[in-house]
Amino acid sequence: MFELHPRLAADTREVTRLPLCRVLLMNDRRFPWLILVPQRPEIREIHQLSPADRATLVEEIARVAQAMEKLHKADKMNVAALGNQVPQLHVHVIARFASDPAWPNPIWGRGTAEAYEPAQMATAIAAVKGALGA
Amino acid sequence: MFELHPRLAADTREVTRLPLCRVLLMNDRRFPWLILVPQRPEIREIHQLSPADRATLVEEIARVAQAMEKLHKADKMNVAALGNQVPQLHVHVIARFASDPAWPNPIWGRGTAEAYEPAQMATAIAAVKGALGA
Repeated sequence: MFELHPRLAADTREVTRLPLCRVLLMNDRRFPWLILVPQRPEIREIHQLSPADRATLVEEIARVAQAMEKLHKADKMNVAALGNQVPQLHVHVIARFASDPAWPNPIWGRGTAEAYEPAQMATAIAAVKGALGA
Repeated sequence: MFELHPRLAADTREVTRLPLCRVLLMNDRRFPWLILVPQRPEIREIHQLSPADRATLVEEIARVAQAMEKLHKADKMNVAALGNQVPQLHVHVIARFASDPAWPNPIWGRGTAEAYEPAQMATAIAAVKGALGA
């Protein structure tokens, strides 16, 4: 049975659930930063998913990335499955801007996360839900 | 018409061509580091590919990542499409080890690339080709 990794649960808030992935908002208001987690148990690598799940994963990545690009007028989308610290397969989808504090570098390990205020978080989640039509 | 971005051409050597992607070896012997480039013109984002190309892309990623994991007995595979510096869509597939110089952080922007010696490069390319059955 799928269970969200406690570290992901602690660092994010749930936005919605797609057929394969749980869509989570990273609690770091410095970056529009979502995390997609395939709701399958014991998966660490993309190649451990079934081909059917992989096909769904890439479509859900595309749908979420396109929605975030449009919502935030992003200069570039960053998509990554790293997992060196949290072993449960999860895919980062991050809207990047030439004006953001890490540009043009990747965002991981830069500075310290800045948590959303509760009202900001609610607004951010509603905006992503709206963009996804979810 | 597809043409490889000059920055990617300068930083890599070609390993093989799959139905969709060119498979390139990053010229940095610190990490087993491949780059997949869909041979489609004017594409910056995964969501700009057709659904059929996306399905092929994720299968080629899985094939290459699984081969590299096995070849190098990797602890973790890192897969990422960033493109903040080189706009042509390209996907990093990197074998990571708890003993590598960047672990557990991502490898981008860490230290300076160390070029392969020509004989080392030939050996590395042959090993990847063998692992891919290419």
